[in-house]
Amino acid sequence: MNLTRSIAYYILKRMSEELLPLTVRMMDATDLRRGFLAALSVLKPAELTDEQALEVFRNRMQARVQTYVALIDDRIAGTASLFLEPKFIHGGGIVGHIEDVATHAAYQKHGVGASLVAELLSVCRRAGCYKVILDCDEQVIPFYEKLGFRRWEHTLRIDL
Amino acid sequence: MNLTRSIAYYILKRMSEELLPLTVRMMDATDLRRGFLAALSVLKPAELTDEQALEVFRNRMQARVQTYVALIDDRIAGTASLFLEPKFIHGGGIVGHIEDVATHAAYQKHGVGASLVAELLSVCRRAGCYKVILDCDEQVIPFYEKLGFRRWEHTLRIDL
Repeated sequence: MNLTRSIAYYILKRMSEELLPLTVRMMDATDLRRGFLAALSVLKPAELTDEQALEVFRNRMQARVQTYVALIDDRIAGTASLFLEPKFIHGGGIVGHIEDVATHAAYQKHGVGASLVAELLSVCRRAGCYKVILDCDEQVIPFYEKLGFRRWEHTLRIDL
Repeated sequence: MNLTRSIAYYILKRMSEELLPLTVRMMDATDLRRGFLAALSVLKPAELTDEQALEVFRNRMQARVQTYVALIDDRIAGTASLFLEPKFIHGGGIVGHIEDVATHAAYQKHGVGASLVAELLSVCRRAGCYKVILDCDEQVIPFYEKLGFRRWEHTLRIDL
């Protein structure tokens, strides 16, 4: 039911705003030439050459981290990542972990982030996930609450 | 420095308490016969047959989820899991995600959980992680703070 609500929300959001034709799909290496790192840099500067970024992309595929992109006019408008974790608990159920949701500064307020998250939730549902979790700052919680997420636990960190 | 502090803490903790000989290592399939699911069930009942658990174990290896176990007298006293996520941001740095830290009810208060987390932090350091994160309930935050973790973000969840 939460998923239905979040998909409905993103469709309505897209309908109610300036509609730029938007495609969401898995990233491929050529997206590095479509402004991928520029879109991601709203989170943190990636500080990578194209060659280094390609190596990271390969490392992420090996680590089973799925990167998704949203395209407008063949440029990267946003990105979001997903990792699927099979658990022993919950009868061997799968948990989806969403990471690094970012919308390029030039494409804010066009439902890019909501479209990306809705696509990731669809992927998780097809994979049989029983829940999807993500960590975020206090200020973006309302964005995710509109998509059906709720507050759950606390994220702790240690720097190495 | 945080890592040094957390290792010092766990060594002191182990020295100051009843010392049961403890081994921490990566899980292998035979650990299912050493009480692995019973140890994990302090989190949630796994509700798996040995055969199903073996399949989940294989799925987790394919998904690059590393499962660690702590053994006392050749029985599973506890477990903790780790996933390494290479990032585009932070110059292609790696983030360690700790999941499902559990100590068997019969082995609580012997530093099992702290030993497991310290081992995972060592693995993360060797892998070149710049940070390690985990999600937890409010009530176990003091445990992780003693190991050097600090409050970071909020965990949100959606049920599918």
